[in-house]
Amino acid sequence: MTSKSSPRKPRGRRPADAIVDVREHLLDVTTQLFSDQGVAATTVAQIANAAGVATAMVHYYFTNREKLLDAIVDERVAPTAAFVWQPATEETNRDPFVLAQTFIDRLFDVTNRMPWLPSLWLREIVNEGGLLRSRMIKRLPFDSVQRFSVTLTKAQSEGTVNPDLEAGLLFNSILALVMLPLATAKILQNVPGIPAVERDMLHRHVSALLMGGMQPPRRSPPTKPHAASRSKS
Amino acid sequence: MTSKSSPRKPRGRRPADAIVDVREHLLDVTTQLFSDQGVAATTVAQIANAAGVATAMVHYYFTNREKLLDAIVDERVAPTAAFVWQPATEETNRDPFVLAQTFIDRLFDVTNRMPWLPSLWLREIVNEGGLLRSRMIKRLPFDSVQRFSVTLTKAQSEGTVNPDLEAGLLFNSILALVMLPLATAKILQNVPGIPAVERDMLHRHVSALLMGGMQPPRRSPPTKPHAASRSKS
Repeated sequence: MTSKSSPRKPRGRRPADAIVDVREHLLDVTTQLFSDQGVAATTVAQIANAAGVATAMVHYYFTNREKLLDAIVDERVAPTAAFVWQPATEETNRDPFVLAQTFIDRLFDVTNRMPWLPSLWLREIVNEGGLLRSRMIKRLPFDSVQRFSVTLTKAQSEGTVNPDLEAGLLFNSILALVMLPLATAKILQNVPGIPAVERDMLHRHVSALLMGGMQPPRRSPPTKPHAASRSKS
Repeated sequence: MTSKSSPRKPRGRRPADAIVDVREHLLDVTTQLFSDQGVAATTVAQIANAAGVATAMVHYYFTNREKLLDAIVDERVAPTAAFVWQPATEETNRDPFVLAQTFIDRLFDVTNRMPWLPSLWLREIVNEGGLLRSRMIKRLPFDSVQRFSVTLTKAQSEGTVNPDLEAGLLFNSILALVMLPLATAKILQNVPGIPAVERDMLHRHVSALLMGGMQPPRRSPPTKPHAASRSKS
């Protein structure tokens, strides 16, 4: 994020802009290091080195490690959750299928714009002992999460959503289906980042699985007997 | 796993049995530590201490750290994958719904018998940089994984399985849906282990989501228009 101005083409950057850039740049660098190697393994020296500044600069902007973690969560991670849970149109809120599809689409959108998110989420938020977990839990919009469960339960009672789904578990299922492959795909494919065609394939696959899974079971028996028509506890 | 024999009630344990028990006990203790705190954070001293033996005993049975990791994977982790992928009946193999349900049931079975598995899987196998990952990849039964994809693709072409699912991604979806909640539920619920009622609820939920998701889309349009009937890329 820092720009090197060449003597021949001054960019007209005022000193005040440079100061803002450094703090943002430090946050970007830290987020990437946390995502790549985890919070515990990341030192202030590494952050400073990756950002091209003195370690004193890191302390200048973030005082200490705890405040740095606060800033990462407040300014980088929590906004992604806020994006996913932002209010939807009334029409969307009424239809649990459209609502679930909206969550899926937003998760793919936000992880596309922030490729560091899945790995960071897996390492430090959902993982037992994750070092950003307690901070993120405080910032989760539990009201919105609850409203989604209520919408689902209502639709289940009306017969428009699969009654065998557990309403309180569905959002976590969506998270698992989207985030786990995105967090682990790098190793699976041995290439940096994930090719767009793979992301689109996963997006279609998860959408199909969710939309199909949310459907109420068919009334007419299918031609081939299968597990769904047998009651399994 | 070690038993303390009281002077009054000799258990009649022969020295040979004691030796076998120590090695198995060390493997059990190591697996639990790896699951609880990760491979990198676990030292030989901690293993010895937790097992109630001298560190020299750990080296006696496992020579060095690399051989210890080999033994953990060979004797504790890989057998769980072998269990999940063990051959099924011909009837099961023909029906992708029954096959998928079988995988779900086996995953719940094996994680019930080995509660350390989900967390270990999340920390060290699926996670980027997981320290048991490369060993496990070598031991995955890729033929069986491939066969499942082929069975799905065939059923999709015959119209009995949702054509919008990606056959090659479905098993990983099943893994994500089962393992992620089991690996993270401890923190979510703040109780050691997961109550049986929660496991059963998750089991039913995942089964319903998968069986519904694998269904081909309905031919007759549903009463309420929803996202599945809009084409989304």
